[in-house]
Amino acid sequence: MTQGSSTSSSTGASSTAASPNPGSPQLEKATNITWHDGTVSRDEREALMGHKGATIWMTGVSGAGKSTVAVALEQVLIQRRIHAYRLDGDNIRFGLNKNLGFSAADRAENIRRIGEVAKLFNDAGMVVTTSFISPYKDDRAKVRELHDKAGLTFIEAHINCTLEEAERRDPKGLYKKARSGEIKGFTGIDDPFEAPEKPELDLRTDVHSVKELVQIILDELEQRGVIPAANN
Amino acid sequence: MTQGSSTSSSTGASSTAASPNPGSPQLEKATNITWHDGTVSRDEREALMGHKGATIWMTGVSGAGKSTVAVALEQVLIQRRIHAYRLDGDNIRFGLNKNLGFSAADRAENIRRIGEVAKLFNDAGMVVTTSFISPYKDDRAKVRELHDKAGLTFIEAHINCTLEEAERRDPKGLYKKARSGEIKGFTGIDDPFEAPEKPELDLRTDVHSVKELVQIILDELEQRGVIPAANN
Repeated sequence: MTQGSSTSSSTGASSTAASPNPGSPQLEKATNITWHDGTVSRDEREALMGHKGATIWMTGVSGAGKSTVAVALEQVLIQRRIHAYRLDGDNIRFGLNKNLGFSAADRAENIRRIGEVAKLFNDAGMVVTTSFISPYKDDRAKVRELHDKAGLTFIEAHINCTLEEAERRDPKGLYKKARSGEIKGFTGIDDPFEAPEKPELDLRTDVHSVKELVQIILDELEQRGVIPAANN
Repeated sequence: MTQGSSTSSSTGASSTAASPNPGSPQLEKATNITWHDGTVSRDEREALMGHKGATIWMTGVSGAGKSTVAVALEQVLIQRRIHAYRLDGDNIRFGLNKNLGFSAADRAENIRRIGEVAKLFNDAGMVVTTSFISPYKDDRAKVRELHDKAGLTFIEAHINCTLEEAERRDPKGLYKKARSGEIKGFTGIDDPFEAPEKPELDLRTDVHSVKELVQIILDELEQRGVIPAANN
């Protein structure tokens, strides 16, 4: 990026709340360091990254295929030089949220924190996916509102298959344990999954292949202007 | 990135804990979607980004200049196409950590969460700065350990000036309030600042200009191989 382009983009009209930028940036020159007053604007970030940030919030019952779709999507995005990152149980449950249990309050706090972290990644210009059951509408609505207020793209993706199919797959043996009573409060068995009524994406993993679903997400990201159209 | 380069980099020896990658990636081809088994490795990410991730943990008393240095550094990094992001009070205190107060336990939890989020950004290949007083050695040591265990670069930067100078600057009028007793438990007045004994960087804001300090940080990042050398 040249000094000129970064300067002009920093004065763009769409630099909003999260990265306020003063109207008249002043440039300072040093041997090899140049900066203007104020923080890096969202426009500057986008010009550098070549795409916008977005949160793809994957919700669905255990075994629906959230992680499978997220992993495949991430790979394809990275190969297209779209900076993507996945938030999932592996990097959240044993890290940021390791001090949370499974009470109603802790479950809500779990989703709240994930929503806040997704927002930060989104603001940083990344396409971030979250793969958590997130069964309650209210929790998801709060995360959506958080993004809306900051002018950040939020795509709710219902990773959807019949409960019968998810239970048949039972990749972690959890449905079996829930049926036997070894696990209590399991989503879909003795705790509700509140399916999204109007998700941006309804992705049927019992109908479409992973490849097809990834393409559907890419199309959505392109149509929203988050990522440039593929040149192939 | 070509398919070949992403495949070969995914088998690199340094793909470690956070992003395990199977030894023999299998490639699938579709019209315009290609992926291999397993998740995106840290090597693949670095090849895409053109640099590694790092956490620059800025610690120092109120008024020492943490945010000033972080803002200037971010701009310079972004102009060099290094993907950088700042975590600071503006985007953490009123978001992720809005349910924390100022008790000893909450202060520790505040730093713990920031450390976990910094680790995620670092793992995602970003150069992330944190600008928080973080006065206690133990809290900072835990964040360092978290990064060390994951094989992620952690740079403790003491944003350092005399307390007299910080109090003279008093940009937010907080020292005045602390001296008058309006604020209790203020770092440097009636609560200790446990200065780092061996920080990776000791940045004296009462000796050097912001420009000089940014250059010192850039040099450190280059020497550690986090970012490529500047070509100027």
